[in-house]
Amino acid sequence: MKKHNFSAGPCILPQSVLQKASEAILNFNDLDLSLVEISHRSKDFVDVMENAKSLSLELLGLQNKGYKALFLQGGASMEFLRVANNLLEKKAAYLNTGTWANKAIKEAKLYGELIEVASSKDNNFNYIPKNYTIPSEVDYFHCTSNNTIFGTQINQFPKTDVVKVCDMSSDIFSRQMDFSQFDLIYAGAQKNMGPAGTTLIIIKEEILGKVSRVIPSMLDYQVHISKDSMFNTPAVFPVYVSMLTLEWLKDLGGISAIEKINNQKAALLYSEIDRNTLFKGFVADKEDRSKMNATFNLIDDSFSETFNNLWKEAGINGLNGHRSVGGYRASMYNALPLESVQVLVNIMKELERKA
Amino acid sequence: MKKHNFSAGPCILPQSVLQKASEAILNFNDLDLSLVEISHRSKDFVDVMENAKSLSLELLGLQNKGYKALFLQGGASMEFLRVANNLLEKKAAYLNTGTWANKAIKEAKLYGELIEVASSKDNNFNYIPKNYTIPSEVDYFHCTSNNTIFGTQINQFPKTDVVKVCDMSSDIFSRQMDFSQFDLIYAGAQKNMGPAGTTLIIIKEEILGKVSRVIPSMLDYQVHISKDSMFNTPAVFPVYVSMLTLEWLKDLGGISAIEKINNQKAALLYSEIDRNTLFKGFVADKEDRSKMNATFNLIDDSFSETFNNLWKEAGINGLNGHRSVGGYRASMYNALPLESVQVLVNIMKELERKA
Repeated sequence: MKKHNFSAGPCILPQSVLQKASEAILNFNDLDLSLVEISHRSKDFVDVMENAKSLSLELLGLQNKGYKALFLQGGASMEFLRVANNLLEKKAAYLNTGTWANKAIKEAKLYGELIEVASSKDNNFNYIPKNYTIPSEVDYFHCTSNNTIFGTQINQFPKTDVVKVCDMSSDIFSRQMDFSQFDLIYAGAQKNMGPAGTTLIIIKEEILGKVSRVIPSMLDYQVHISKDSMFNTPAVFPVYVSMLTLEWLKDLGGISAIEKINNQKAALLYSEIDRNTLFKGFVADKEDRSKMNATFNLIDDSFSETFNNLWKEAGINGLNGHRSVGGYRASMYNALPLESVQVLVNIMKELERKA
Repeated sequence: MKKHNFSAGPCILPQSVLQKASEAILNFNDLDLSLVEISHRSKDFVDVMENAKSLSLELLGLQNKGYKALFLQGGASMEFLRVANNLLEKKAAYLNTGTWANKAIKEAKLYGELIEVASSKDNNFNYIPKNYTIPSEVDYFHCTSNNTIFGTQINQFPKTDVVKVCDMSSDIFSRQMDFSQFDLIYAGAQKNMGPAGTTLIIIKEEILGKVSRVIPSMLDYQVHISKDSMFNTPAVFPVYVSMLTLEWLKDLGGISAIEKINNQKAALLYSEIDRNTLFKGFVADKEDRSKMNATFNLIDDSFSETFNNLWKEAGINGLNGHRSVGGYRASMYNALPLESVQVLVNIMKELERKA
């Protein structure tokens, strides 16, 4: 019996994807070889890589628009470094919406002057700053679309003429928007896309090659583009499972189809958080609430033991909040069924009856 | 029916390891969750990481000797960069034994002065240079223990008082030696250790913290040591399979046990290459021959079609040589059974009979 997996990441993946991945470890494409035992330059694996890249662009509606997709190693944390190495000549503007944005700022500071255009640090990042100005002379603007730890999500991205970079690690492929407003999007795989160990990077090629520094090969997007993500051996298994998950999403009807389900899940849980007298949401402004990670607390902590027992008994996994917020965090990534959210909501109602 | 897998990497892994890995994708540790769906900070995965690190040190005989083990992302190519970032203040000495050594040199040059102490480039890297001098004033000496592409392997490492760094990507855990002669060893997992996507780094801690540059967090060994390889989400699946492979090796009797089998495999194949009138070995000096990758050519290329058909019909995979050498390359990593080498040798004899 599978758990109801609300883990913040690495997190739930579609069961059909896990089934195929498990089989490929023993026998991939009927080669009588494991997926992880073959050359990454064999046709069978090159097809996987090409398919993963092309599905990414297709699902985001970015084919034939000057974008390239890469699958590299290192997680979003390595992109904090790569972005600055490739784009930061003098100044960059960053929006500070929490832990991950902060880390991106810290690494980029090694390469140039950083302007923090706005920050929600004053209230422990429980809202998304608005009405800030992006200076026109910066090399690029960087933001984090969804803040896993605090449970906030950007709903209106700023309009700007400067190069726009977005860390979408925790909400890529979860909602529709005009992705062509961004020049560079990156996302660690381990939320909506696949297992930990690979990062998707989508780059508008024309923004590259404009800094004067010599970039080490492994940090240079142009090197990786010229080698089709095969400058060195890629993370074969994480890329393969990402491809399977992207195929699953396409078969389901793409981002517009999953967005409807994600909206239902978020509406179900947030309406219970707001209705239930025992709970309160962490995020100050309802419009900033993340549809991926709902953060909430018990108003009276004395109920926590009972609540914890109830959800664990119901087969729920991964509901504890991050230490910097406390309370609870229900991560509702693409692969989480509506049914799991219903189980959680039932437990919240049961707690209220018992209280 | 499994293939006889001579692939140069990613390459053959023990079948029992693949079986366990396949099961963990569906249900890990009876958690009713996939290995790739749980938090990397959960006790179940932290145990995997700790176990993988401690097995690495144990198998190399490096426990309690001031070494730390790390499992990071990026492959050996990322270590070319990390090594120089962490250790290169002014000058470093590199031994050039082929493609990978060359790439390491190219990246390190961005950070200081490089002295190539010796090179076998004059003969397309078909030997290991000897009798070179390592200047005493360099920050470190770097070498590549096994050269996958050319089929050479260092058998006598130079004695030196300077910090000694070795890229052991393609022969780590395959032969016994005094590993404490090295201050830093690194190895991409995808040969003797696991699937592509993680790199093992073994560092004597006392060599760190001696350069004046500010090192970006993701490139800083001290940052990764302080976070127990969990500064950011590790490559969960590749680390887990590496742990399983290290357990398999320990159960087998450790490096001394596998070395005996590796010696038998290499002796069987090289004696046939030397005996068979149709083949010649690529490596000039027999003492420089790699026990991991045997490179050899047909003396008369007109037999190549017949030979290729014969080995493919026998269920052999991955025997084509690298384009820079041509001919054939039989990679005989730890998990390749002696029986597979016997099948190849039989085919070579059969070709000779048919010729």
